[in-house]
Amino acid sequence: MIGITIGDPAGVGPEITLRAVADMDASERARTRIFGCVKTLSAAQEILGMNLKLGSDISITDIPVQDAPLIFGKEDARGGDAAFRNMQAAVHSALAGEINCIVTAPLNKASLNAAGHHYDGHTGMLAYLTNTPKAWMILASERLKVIHNSTHVSLKDAISRATPTSILETIRIGDKHLKRLGYEDPRIAVAGINPHCGEGGLFGNEDQINILPAVEAGQKEGINVCGPIPADTVFHRAYNGAFDLVVAQYHDQGHIPVKLVAFDTAVNVSLGLPIDRTSVDHGTAFDIAGKGIADHSNMIEAISYARKLRTGLNR
Amino acid sequence: MIGITIGDPAGVGPEITLRAVADMDASERARTRIFGCVKTLSAAQEILGMNLKLGSDISITDIPVQDAPLIFGKEDARGGDAAFRNMQAAVHSALAGEINCIVTAPLNKASLNAAGHHYDGHTGMLAYLTNTPKAWMILASERLKVIHNSTHVSLKDAISRATPTSILETIRIGDKHLKRLGYEDPRIAVAGINPHCGEGGLFGNEDQINILPAVEAGQKEGINVCGPIPADTVFHRAYNGAFDLVVAQYHDQGHIPVKLVAFDTAVNVSLGLPIDRTSVDHGTAFDIAGKGIADHSNMIEAISYARKLRTGLNR
Repeated sequence: MIGITIGDPAGVGPEITLRAVADMDASERARTRIFGCVKTLSAAQEILGMNLKLGSDISITDIPVQDAPLIFGKEDARGGDAAFRNMQAAVHSALAGEINCIVTAPLNKASLNAAGHHYDGHTGMLAYLTNTPKAWMILASERLKVIHNSTHVSLKDAISRATPTSILETIRIGDKHLKRLGYEDPRIAVAGINPHCGEGGLFGNEDQINILPAVEAGQKEGINVCGPIPADTVFHRAYNGAFDLVVAQYHDQGHIPVKLVAFDTAVNVSLGLPIDRTSVDHGTAFDIAGKGIADHSNMIEAISYARKLRTGLNR
Repeated sequence: MIGITIGDPAGVGPEITLRAVADMDASERARTRIFGCVKTLSAAQEILGMNLKLGSDISITDIPVQDAPLIFGKEDARGGDAAFRNMQAAVHSALAGEINCIVTAPLNKASLNAAGHHYDGHTGMLAYLTNTPKAWMILASERLKVIHNSTHVSLKDAISRATPTSILETIRIGDKHLKRLGYEDPRIAVAGINPHCGEGGLFGNEDQINILPAVEAGQKEGINVCGPIPADTVFHRAYNGAFDLVVAQYHDQGHIPVKLVAFDTAVNVSLGLPIDRTSVDHGTAFDIAGKGIADHSNMIEAISYARKLRTGLNR
């Protein structure tokens, strides 16, 4: 059973959620629940020319929005607050064991903050709601999957967070996750932090001091991991089939290659939380929200990824 | 007139140089000179089944290697020393005005260092030989061109080198270079240093304090430059036609995307030197050197790029 949160009701979330549900057969719908405002969804159905019976064709947990529907494509604190409450309800439901994975449609950070919810996005919100100290992010595209040792911190901070302990934990979490996806012996490569991995200490020694010990410790645990590998070649190699997962040392190191080859089509996966969560990798797209033209293929990918996760602890 | 250095004579340099020359018509050959060991080139011709009259069909400055030819594909200090001397002769010739651009085949860093020449590669060697304090590197592929604010320094150092003065100079040099390539009003984007450019100061303020002032100063000088733009989207946008050049803040930021979409096919260009230099973007490929199977298309690109540069100061 998966739960889809519609994110910000003024964005494309309601549309892409409904379209994805429309593409499901009855048996898949029976394993799906939407978390969002019914009035908003009804308005979106009208725009899309759809006619699902909300609550019977598809299970819904109604999270009403005042004066719904909001104006599509407009920043509104009520939209940000709704995105928070949608997630809150889904987390509650997941912790109660009613759903096994949350799939999230996009929220708008400005609206979220305007509503007094100060998070860096879904992942931070989820960490707070589940009382988890740290979460990891995987960006998963068909040919390139990347797990990040850190995400929303300055580049300077990211360097100091690339410690042997943290990198080893990232390797372990990535390995376990890929096993849950069905990889028997995931091939993991760890990207270096300095150009050419520091070229034997000529420019920086973080690769030798922090990354290498983590890789060796992972190998001792039986994980099929190697590195550090210079960042300018490891993504090319992984993209061409040499590795199943790359450990990136900082946000942009992993995001640059994935966004280049799979813009708006990768699935964003949160790990390290007590519940599973996948997400689309695009934003609320306020410029086209409410027009019935938003592409829902990334949502379908996020749902399909969620269904692939074998039962088992996320962490 | 261009000069091609064959790089390390034990690598694929001699083969790809000869193959590129074989593809030229007589008029283009007349505007080309090879810098390298004639005995090595003769051996490579035999392997390739080629029969150019070295010295008459194509102009050559002979840089003899002791006991040439060396064993192809083997690290050898004599090969490293030859690579240095090839470059030295070409620089001499360029400074004397005999050639307008140097096109370099790959060298092997280990061999170079074994011969007592301690440089980080061609660019460092060129900076030394021309007494230039700083050189810039452009990686140029068909759809994505990147200039780097710094290259072979640790990531930590790269952050501290991303000062307003340095970034402005990088913007200016990139702008001038693209104008020499024929772009009338090059569209330049400057990549941010922190994820999401620091998200308004939430994670790091380098983007606001160091990058923004450089961009604004560039704009005041009439350069068509914008930024900082989050690094995870700027390369995707440039690749899809929004910008002609991206200013990367550190080596891997620029190398990751170019190597991903144009592995071994980009042209590496040195700027900021008193002479022009383009290079192939691959290595000596010792595993296939001397077998006559090396692909010379990247060398053709490097030559073609060199010929495109309009007369004018590099800097």
